[in-house]
Amino acid sequence: MTHAAGILWILSAPSGAGKTSLARALVAEVPGLRTSVSFTTRAPRPGEQDGVDYHFVSKETFAAMAERGEFLEYAQVHGNSYGTGESWVKQQLFQGADCLLEIDWQGARLVRERLPDYAQSIFILPPSLSTLEERLRGRGQDSAEVIARRLAAAREELLHYDEFDYLVVNADFAAALADLRSILRAAHLRREQQQFTEGERLKHLLGGQ
Amino acid sequence: MTHAAGILWILSAPSGAGKTSLARALVAEVPGLRTSVSFTTRAPRPGEQDGVDYHFVSKETFAAMAERGEFLEYAQVHGNSYGTGESWVKQQLFQGADCLLEIDWQGARLVRERLPDYAQSIFILPPSLSTLEERLRGRGQDSAEVIARRLAAAREELLHYDEFDYLVVNADFAAALADLRSILRAAHLRREQQQFTEGERLKHLLGGQ
Repeated sequence: MTHAAGILWILSAPSGAGKTSLARALVAEVPGLRTSVSFTTRAPRPGEQDGVDYHFVSKETFAAMAERGEFLEYAQVHGNSYGTGESWVKQQLFQGADCLLEIDWQGARLVRERLPDYAQSIFILPPSLSTLEERLRGRGQDSAEVIARRLAAAREELLHYDEFDYLVVNADFAAALADLRSILRAAHLRREQQQFTEGERLKHLLGGQ
Repeated sequence: MTHAAGILWILSAPSGAGKTSLARALVAEVPGLRTSVSFTTRAPRPGEQDGVDYHFVSKETFAAMAERGEFLEYAQVHGNSYGTGESWVKQQLFQGADCLLEIDWQGARLVRERLPDYAQSIFILPPSLSTLEERLRGRGQDSAEVIARRLAAAREELLHYDEFDYLVVNADFAAALADLRSILRAAHLRREQQQFTEGERLKHLLGGQ
């Protein structure tokens, strides 16, 4: 490699913590940060584009890809499968670009095991469970039962906060976004991350005289 | 401790890399970041205040403090001694405040050995040796010989860049300052740094329902 590899950012959070909005804002403002398009077996919703929102594939295709080990991680949610393709992510990292994955704690664990030298993980915490409940209710589309199930799932997800490298509390959107921005920027300033670049720079510095 | 301890930031750089200006700007804008006032045996210059710019002490006092192990690190420069008092720094850290030390690679090594759980170190690199030479000449107060000696010292200092946790290239002052700001902010978002705080928060979150 003639440059440092990219960092694979894992972003996890209980549903309702604001992960998706934060991820979208981060990708919009950080140059070169790329998000992986997931594979899924669920049917496209109106307006969703194949290759943009998801790669829509059949159950058979998905199973065959899983069989061949082509997913960094995959999971079943409400009877549908979702997976992150490994080859695209690796290609970005080797080219020096950062990638962002929005996955749950189980996916995070698999990715960490598979790419330990590249993965760095961030967990978004809601400021309180009542805020989380308000946010989940606020969507206004779901029954009390669905909300209760989501809250239970959120509590389960929360219990895994201690497996992550960074914790960001999303009490204020702008502050949480600034936190994420700092985490990404600082990670690239770590010596190990730029050893090669700076080693070369130094050789140039000291040899130049 | 009922809160996370502070971080002891070590800032090192070859002379002329812009370390002092960056440190001053950083302390001015980061709330709660404190700088240690060094002890020195050199005489006060006009306008310098005891206890503000330095703690001015006699050679005997300095030697006795060194003997009693009261310095985190100390060094001789042009026949004068300079040292960082340990007790004040530890007190700040235990109160949860970050401290900033501007010291050279030798001092950095001593501090890392003495407070390995608290110290994080940043090395400021000049964009090139010719920039450094220009900056050293730019001060316009020194003979060619003094400048040559400083440059030699700068090259020696540069060779220790690989002992530091972070590398920041000071090509553009505002960008380098933003780098430092990100490093400080991100460090406080690391899980280990806020394990206690977030552990408590989580207990509160999950117990609150």
